[in-house]
Amino acid sequence: MRHLKTLFVLCFFLTSSAFSQERPREKGIIFGVLSTGDLNAITDVQGVKVGHFTKIEGDNIRTGVTAILPHGGNIFQQKVPAAIYVGNGFGKLAGVTQVQELGNIETPIILTNTLSVAAGIEGAVRYSLEQNQTAHSVNAVVGETNDGYLNDIRGMHISPEEVIQTIQSAQSGKVEEGNVGAGTGTVCFGWKGGIGTASRKLPESLGGYTVGILVQTNFGGNLQIDGVAVGEKMGKYPFRDAMEKSDGSCMIVVATDAPVLERNLERMAKRAMMGLAKTGGIASNGSGDYVIAFSTAEGLRIPYVLPSQTLEKAEFIQNDDMSSLFMAVIEATEEAIINSLFAAETMEGKDGHVVQELPINEVMKLNNQN
Amino acid sequence: MRHLKTLFVLCFFLTSSAFSQERPREKGIIFGVLSTGDLNAITDVQGVKVGHFTKIEGDNIRTGVTAILPHGGNIFQQKVPAAIYVGNGFGKLAGVTQVQELGNIETPIILTNTLSVAAGIEGAVRYSLEQNQTAHSVNAVVGETNDGYLNDIRGMHISPEEVIQTIQSAQSGKVEEGNVGAGTGTVCFGWKGGIGTASRKLPESLGGYTVGILVQTNFGGNLQIDGVAVGEKMGKYPFRDAMEKSDGSCMIVVATDAPVLERNLERMAKRAMMGLAKTGGIASNGSGDYVIAFSTAEGLRIPYVLPSQTLEKAEFIQNDDMSSLFMAVIEATEEAIINSLFAAETMEGKDGHVVQELPINEVMKLNNQN
Amino acid sequence: MRHLKTLFVLCFFLTSSAFSQERPREKGIIFGVLSTGDLNAITDVQGVKVGHFTKIEGDNIRTGVTAILPHGGNIFQQKVPAAIYVGNGFGKLAGVTQVQELGNIETPIILTNTLSVAAGIEGAVRYSLEQNQTAHSVNAVVGETNDGYLNDIRGMHISPEEVIQTIQSAQSGKVEEGNVGAGTGTVCFGWKGGIGTASRKLPESLGGYTVGILVQTNFGGNLQIDGVAVGEKMGKYPFRDAMEKSDGSCMIVVATDAPVLERNLERMAKRAMMGLAKTGGIASNGSGDYVIAFSTAEGLRIPYVLPSQTLEKAEFIQNDDMSSLFMAVIEATEEAIINSLFAAETMEGKDGHVVQELPINEVMKLNNQN
Amino acid sequence: MRHLKTLFVLCFFLTSSAFSQERPREKGIIFGVLSTGDLNAITDVQGVKVGHFTKIEGDNIRTGVTAILPHGGNIFQQKVPAAIYVGNGFGKLAGVTQVQELGNIETPIILTNTLSVAAGIEGAVRYSLEQNQTAHSVNAVVGETNDGYLNDIRGMHISPEEVIQTIQSAQSGKVEEGNVGAGTGTVCFGWKGGIGTASRKLPESLGGYTVGILVQTNFGGNLQIDGVAVGEKMGKYPFRDAMEKSDGSCMIVVATDAPVLERNLERMAKRAMMGLAKTGGIASNGSGDYVIAFSTAEGLRIPYVLPSQTLEKAEFIQNDDMSSLFMAVIEATEEAIINSLFAAETMEGKDGHVVQELPINEVMKLNNQN
Repeated sequence: MRHLKTLFVLCFFLTSSAFSQERPREKGIIFGVLSTGDLNAITDVQGVKVGHFTKIEGDNIRTGVTAILPHGGNIFQQKVPAAIYVGNGFGKLAGVTQVQELGNIETPIILTNTLSVAAGIEGAVRYSLEQNQTAHSVNAVVGETNDGYLNDIRGMHISPEEVIQTIQSAQSGKVEEGNVGAGTGTVCFGWKGGIGTASRKLPESLGGYTVGILVQTNFGGNLQIDGVAVGEKMGKYPFRDAMEKSDGSCMIVVATDAPVLERNLERMAKRAMMGLAKTGGIASNGSGDYVIAFSTAEGLRIPYVLPSQTLEKAEFIQNDDMSSLFMAVIEATEEAIINSLFAAETMEGKDGHVVQELPINEVMKLNNQN
Repeated sequence: MRHLKTLFVLCFFLTSSAFSQERPREKGIIFGVLSTGDLNAITDVQGVKVGHFTKIEGDNIRTGVTAILPHGGNIFQQKVPAAIYVGNGFGKLAGVTQVQELGNIETPIILTNTLSVAAGIEGAVRYSLEQNQTAHSVNAVVGETNDGYLNDIRGMHISPEEVIQTIQSAQSGKVEEGNVGAGTGTVCFGWKGGIGTASRKLPESLGGYTVGILVQTNFGGNLQIDGVAVGEKMGKYPFRDAMEKSDGSCMIVVATDAPVLERNLERMAKRAMMGLAKTGGIASNGSGDYVIAFSTAEGLRIPYVLPSQTLEKAEFIQNDDMSSLFMAVIEATEEAIINSLFAAETMEGKDGHVVQELPINEVMKLNNQN
Repeated sequence: MRHLKTLFVLCFFLTSSAFSQERPREKGIIFGVLSTGDLNAITDVQGVKVGHFTKIEGDNIRTGVTAILPHGGNIFQQKVPAAIYVGNGFGKLAGVTQVQELGNIETPIILTNTLSVAAGIEGAVRYSLEQNQTAHSVNAVVGETNDGYLNDIRGMHISPEEVIQTIQSAQSGKVEEGNVGAGTGTVCFGWKGGIGTASRKLPESLGGYTVGILVQTNFGGNLQIDGVAVGEKMGKYPFRDAMEKSDGSCMIVVATDAPVLERNLERMAKRAMMGLAKTGGIASNGSGDYVIAFSTAEGLRIPYVLPSQTLEKAEFIQNDDMSSLFMAVIEATEEAIINSLFAAETMEGKDGHVVQELPINEVMKLNNQN
Repeated sequence: MRHLKTLFVLCFFLTSSAFSQERPREKGIIFGVLSTGDLNAITDVQGVKVGHFTKIEGDNIRTGVTAILPHGGNIFQQKVPAAIYVGNGFGKLAGVTQVQELGNIETPIILTNTLSVAAGIEGAVRYSLEQNQTAHSVNAVVGETNDGYLNDIRGMHISPEEVIQTIQSAQSGKVEEGNVGAGTGTVCFGWKGGIGTASRKLPESLGGYTVGILVQTNFGGNLQIDGVAVGEKMGKYPFRDAMEKSDGSCMIVVATDAPVLERNLERMAKRAMMGLAKTGGIASNGSGDYVIAFSTAEGLRIPYVLPSQTLEKAEFIQNDDMSSLFMAVIEATEEAIINSLFAAETMEGKDGHVVQELPINEVMKLNNQN
């Protein structure tokens, strides 16, 4: 039985998974034309690590934290070029203006629930101060979505310590999807959402670069899976009777090993919203849709301290070669979102609210009819 | 025979059309869940007028102008709230900063080819000066895409006079699609592109507002029609062999009679790129993708001269009611783009280049298999 | 003796002031041509309240919190139109994207030190949740500057409870300036900075509106007071010997009772940086310079819940009438910054660092020579 | 007699000047603390060329064109990194979105009057097409201010050919200021404005870079010269009696040989508005204030065609070293604006309008009293 009701405290970091649901691709749903990386995950981008902290306690707590580390070293000392694109700004993402001004990220990226952004910042800051004894200014990048339907969000149940632990637990390799970490209590297209991930690897003739995506899905719209109008066929879509709403948010993290500077990273980030569009998302008024993109290319690292009047040196991709990376972002974002839906399981939470998992068998039937 | 080769001069304004190709919806392809307006065209938004000037001359000239008028009055005297969203800024759109700063449009919107933007501005300016004897500053909004594959674009074959004539010829009612106006020489997903239009009318319970879209399609990607991966199934998509490119641009005009102020018009404009995404567009590096949105609501008109210290009065839609308008934009943009492909016919142009029309019968077969 | 060294714990909310230093205007320095409001303070904008929490403890803690309340009611229920302009984004301002997307502010504005932004958010969120039992999403607006030269900033000495207390202590009337609240440990142009405030009241013929400014000054440059090159004449300016730096930040809050919507509020916010420029600030790389602007006009309040399909109604200032408000912002920002310098007193803090107060007698001599 | 009334056609390109007015610096007014370049002009940045075309005909034509070339080669083939900052967007600057998207400029920068932007674009495009036989897309950057008080702007008296001639006439060396080129008919702070230029050279310890500024001054406010409140003391400032307005625009071009990429060029551009602020400008509603910044560093040139999958290589200034360049921009912009006022001479133009030159003797008296 995949229906999950906990009567006891369940607080766990990334564990060997009880989740063995096949991913869409394993079931034959192929998104786009580019190849995936080995794991079809953001961790296909070498060096990227992901940590999940899942907090399921009693009847009402269904939340968590996900941390994405651009590399395994000291991020504050070795910042990475980065950009943030605001798809729809009804959200509380912390850290955005410094990333836009300076073009880099200097902490792990933290995802959590809307009212735990403060805990996310404090955790990321404390982690960075601990690692860097001379640091006195830290720009924490913390994204969020609102899991308040299943989670007692007003309880603010995430602590800074849990955020630090999430960072410390981050690892490369397989990434758990579904009801984990920051996706524990989320809802997507009216079904149970969660964490999803996917990747694309360009052919060598196009540079051989990898693009990895991780999403926290918590938004609405008219669900479309690989082109099939699932939401419509199941009668589950917004404004059908002027009653249903489709609010909610999506956090999208884009990683690449391609040597892309911040301006073109922003352009990549923008394309992630196009991948979201292909799943039927509409970026509704209440949605906080943000895309955080970074490059792990070693040659583009920005040291915390560089002697004065020392020039940065870099080799980076020209504008004219960006299009295949754009396409990779679109394809992998679409797949990561659908992956989150396939992995998430029915959950009961706050006030007895139940959110059903996507009925995969029905979906596959609809898909195979096409 | 739909293959069009002209050996003689063909310069025409909006005429009763020789184009009788059925539109996708007439063939049973339904995009999304909302109803269309009566004509399924941008002119379903009351007061909006469209003019096309099509210039097909000799072997090498395949270009034109399209003018969109927010209303039939003096636009400079009665400006309309407006916003412009830059999907991908590799383009020459004129007028963008003033629209963003002041929140309004004061001329007809002109679409033409990349190297005729100057003619577009001069035409719109002369038209406005003529109408307004005290005007000494005019912000012309002129968009463009590059029709240089079929058209001798370097010849700069559009004149300001032709732009003025296009404005003057604008009318309400049915809008010609395909190889007309600014879409005369465009290419989309490797097939002949052109002008397309569509609309959505919200149910009365959601305000009963109309959203109309007009597109000039000239971009690439992996064509998807109502979810069917047409590009892929026909083996026509970017980066298949690292040789094919997918550059090009798309101009999108969004009109609504909903009383929406400029901030929310910008949010609507942003959603048009999500509709484009659903057709498989990737906003490639070389693409100039722009969305111009305006409201025709009479209560929101901005008079050229208002006595000093007179407050503007307005009634306008709140943030919380925007989502259905967002969905309308997404659906109508997707449909307008596909409409342009269905209407456009095979064309031979510059240097003997031929661009085939979308093979509609094949498309319908693929679509019906689904 | 104005040199302030504390050997004991000093934690106080807005008190009757020990600071009796005359303000520049009282000494005859007149900035610009417009009149001030009664108090020459942000609280001249009716309804605006300010609270300071000053934390001076032991040798190393020199920090605090300042809260600005747009009105005395429930801000979450009665949001105010607002905008944020990023002068230089090397800072951690929280809440920016939602303000930009939705055009309003729904919490008190909190200012504090860089590493206490999390505490600021948590305080503002808890305060709002407490006041609003159905709220499950709160966008806290928290600005900061880095007081790490005088303050043990890494100690993160501000608690969420102190933030809540600061909000609750806010009051209308006279505003304390100098070493108080978020300005307790700041440094400006190499002298002791702090909190400053000023206002302008337009003549009735221009609407009679009031503009109020509050600043947290912590930045560098080439100090200029009412046009007199004080920094230069005192030999205290950046890059004199390629050794001196001028980093630091400035938070600026702009309040007005003029009925200005968010687009024009952003334009007002932009002008505050022009006022800063007139004091000699250069917005150096390390500076986090942000301007938060809001209107208190009652007719522009945005209720938390408005019935669906209810239009907002508003009367607001047209573009053409904005220029006098722009000038008011520039003048009052310049004055508020200089006010902060005149009010701040010499302070000794972390690691025995001492920052001298501006030598006002010398400044007045320079000023009078001119 | 410096009062200039022409009864005959006066159309001239950059000539040996009849203007011999001393510049402020020669009169002892020193702006800021950094050194100037040799000529105290934008052409101190090696390779930069400036061309002026001045059109004074009959009683009513008082306008012109100014062209700024980033280098003497083929700019389309060797693009330069660039950024544009919009101080106040009530203007018609062409080319902005492509510069922001791609980070470079590919044509000479053209300045002219508001209604001649189309001519400016057409001229720059034709010039580029002529030089580059395979080009089929050209992004012309054309700025403007409104010289309609002295000039018959509705007559649209600039032709594309005159724009091309202006480009071709551009040269390095001394730059004419005052009533020349695009500054022929402009008005600034109520006095005759025009073209101004200035430069700063950083000490070797800060990199030894040069920053050059060129301005087209046509705006209002409360004139301040090196800190002295000239406008106020002469009773000439906005809103004195609610009748006077202060509209108008300023185009600012920032050139540097420092190897600065586009993100930091945008930050430099932003600081130019701070220099404008120091002259008393208020960026009034009607002002179109734009800053175009580019780097001439040879290592940062972007070739029109780079083989696919070839990385760009660059050495560029890090964020931490930008502040001295910011200060250089501020100082040189302030000086360039005042230079334009000192150079411009009284002009009579359209409808008998006369704009007086700045009464320099009076100004110097005020200045010396300080």
